[in-house]
Amino acid sequence: MSTQAEGPSTDQREIDERWMREAIAEARRAEAHGEVPVGAVLVADGAIIARGHNLRERAQDPTAHAELIALKAAAARSRTWRLSGVTVYVTLEPCPMCAGALVNARVDRVVWGAADPKAGATETLYSIGSDERLNHRFEVCAGVLADECGSLLTDFFRRIRAARRGH
Amino acid sequence: MSTQAEGPSTDQREIDERWMREAIAEARRAEAHGEVPVGAVLVADGAIIARGHNLRERAQDPTAHAELIALKAAAARSRTWRLSGVTVYVTLEPCPMCAGALVNARVDRVVWGAADPKAGATETLYSIGSDERLNHRFEVCAGVLADECGSLLTDFFRRIRAARRGH
Repeated sequence: MSTQAEGPSTDQREIDERWMREAIAEARRAEAHGEVPVGAVLVADGAIIARGHNLRERAQDPTAHAELIALKAAAARSRTWRLSGVTVYVTLEPCPMCAGALVNARVDRVVWGAADPKAGATETLYSIGSDERLNHRFEVCAGVLADECGSLLTDFFRRIRAARRGH
Repeated sequence: MSTQAEGPSTDQREIDERWMREAIAEARRAEAHGEVPVGAVLVADGAIIARGHNLRERAQDPTAHAELIALKAAAARSRTWRLSGVTVYVTLEPCPMCAGALVNARVDRVVWGAADPKAGATETLYSIGSDERLNHRFEVCAGVLADECGSLLTDFFRRIRAARRGH
């Protein structure tokens, strides 16, 4: 039984880790197709309303990141572009395109796993999502199951480099 | 006959204005459907390879900005996500989502009309596109037919406000 002090945050962490495992499952689907393993799920009212995984190579679409695919699917399902009340779980910190799309979609909260030193746009390189000048802000929760999310990527790129060396 | 000093830049300006007029025609298509009038065309090797106009309300898609629609169409047509050699003409300065997508698509050059004080992400609020930390940069040419591009928007919003007042 948890104490009152740690109760709510522990509960929220458990909930966040549960949904992040679903985002990781999406990332593994990307990997199974030879794509960089990044996955996302969108949650509203305690249920997944959309899923997405990186499909850039298979779709040959520069916008086919996990978050954008899931946002489009959620909007189509909800029949509205305004995704208020939605929490986004994604294994990698969103890039500027995806962070901007999350602002445009008016999501409430973004939970991500591994930081992206090269393109992270909610904390690492930019703080899109907490910029008071833009017309919407969302809560960011960084680093949920970060090691597992990051290992997916480092293992993927290690295998690619090994394959290129002929191993 | 132009002098050598003004020759190339005058030529480029004429070319840019020619394609921007096509982007304005796209913006008018958005307007005809009651959408905020923003339009884009993508040009490669002296020809339009894709067009797009804002469709957010009709599509109920938070990502359905002119640039994203045109980028996806160009990638589908070219059968590659890598749109090197492409110049993007858009009537309004790209938002963070669209500026990020233009980086992800590796376009060469972005020419825009009116600045966006609320969300402009290649010059006004952010300089995505000239950020050395990201893995691609593009040339930005701002303010081409700016008055015409901006008037489309101010006239549109003026009509909406008048309609709301019952005029």
